[in-house]
Amino acid sequence: MTAPESSAPRLRGRPRSPATDAAIIEAALRLLEEGASVGGLSIEGIAREAGVGKATVYRRWPDKNALLLDVLRSLEEPGPEPSGVSVRDDLVAILEFMRRRGLAKRNSALLRNVITQMHAHLELWRAYDETVIEARRTALRAVLRRGQETGEIRTDVDLELLADLFTGPMLSRAILHEWKELPEGLAERIVDAVLHGVAPAPRADAPG
Amino acid sequence: MTAPESSAPRLRGRPRSPATDAAIIEAALRLLEEGASVGGLSIEGIAREAGVGKATVYRRWPDKNALLLDVLRSLEEPGPEPSGVSVRDDLVAILEFMRRRGLAKRNSALLRNVITQMHAHLELWRAYDETVIEARRTALRAVLRRGQETGEIRTDVDLELLADLFTGPMLSRAILHEWKELPEGLAERIVDAVLHGVAPAPRADAPG
Repeated sequence: MTAPESSAPRLRGRPRSPATDAAIIEAALRLLEEGASVGGLSIEGIAREAGVGKATVYRRWPDKNALLLDVLRSLEEPGPEPSGVSVRDDLVAILEFMRRRGLAKRNSALLRNVITQMHAHLELWRAYDETVIEARRTALRAVLRRGQETGEIRTDVDLELLADLFTGPMLSRAILHEWKELPEGLAERIVDAVLHGVAPAPRADAPG
Repeated sequence: MTAPESSAPRLRGRPRSPATDAAIIEAALRLLEEGASVGGLSIEGIAREAGVGKATVYRRWPDKNALLLDVLRSLEEPGPEPSGVSVRDDLVAILEFMRRRGLAKRNSALLRNVITQMHAHLELWRAYDETVIEARRTALRAVLRRGQETGEIRTDVDLELLADLFTGPMLSRAILHEWKELPEGLAERIVDAVLHGVAPAPRADAPG
């Protein structure tokens, strides 16, 4: 777990120490791991746990939500690099990454606690979505656009909807229905079903 | 808003009065509407708000979660009746119902507060999913099975995955990304894309 670059602008004073940043983020993670609620966390409590003064925290983050956003970032793993060869395989890799994140969340009380609580804090969830998740969505859109250029994907479905068609079924299982299975091969099955449709293929010798 | 049939078994004593059931559920709704958190609600507080004794509540529901489940049920609307004619149109009607529920949630502080908080209480969410939502999923599965029988839907994709392919994209927008649009026509676009796939259709005159 590494301390991410903070999103907060430097406010004033001495240069920030990355070790202090990391200590503060790890203190917040420790509190969450021990079952603290997102609503119950305070800058004061985090500072105490980290063994620093409140001012030291506020010098780095303007408020609790900005700090929590960096806490969330510290839990991320880099997404897959698209191979650039087959659009289908790149889509499978992206969904497979989502599947593995879903499994990791199920196996980690910390991840589950943090992510589930974030959903209840709309502003924080939106900020997380618009930074961390948006980076992954940008990568996904690039793959989809490439597919439209190579002719692997139709051009008459808009990119946002395309993205939802591929990711929605995986998100539904991984986030909304945590008790459902996330079996191996699910990413391939979703990608192939969305690419080729679930209606029977028209017969090649059909008229018209 | 009507009081639903309670899921709790009758425990003992005089016949239950539906008016009292409704008053208790409406008291819980009022507290939630005023911003009470699901975690902060107590049987005692709900009884006080309803002007009844705690024992009156416990005679109806064994615990807070059972009561909250009935509170959630009271916010439901009946799903669409399948026409039984076109599987495609029945799927559109189901997704259109989800789209409208998503819009209703966005326009209601109460619905948003309740549903968002439920997500943070996994056991309650699961109970809700396994009763209320399961009824809708059963209806969806019946339509999908009919489609497999009529040849409108392939039989080599399992029903659970089929259900996720159709509902996942709508759920992703309606629940996980509340700030995204839910435009008119979205249900049709999702259903047609999932039915026919987003890869270009094979040319009818292609060999093989």
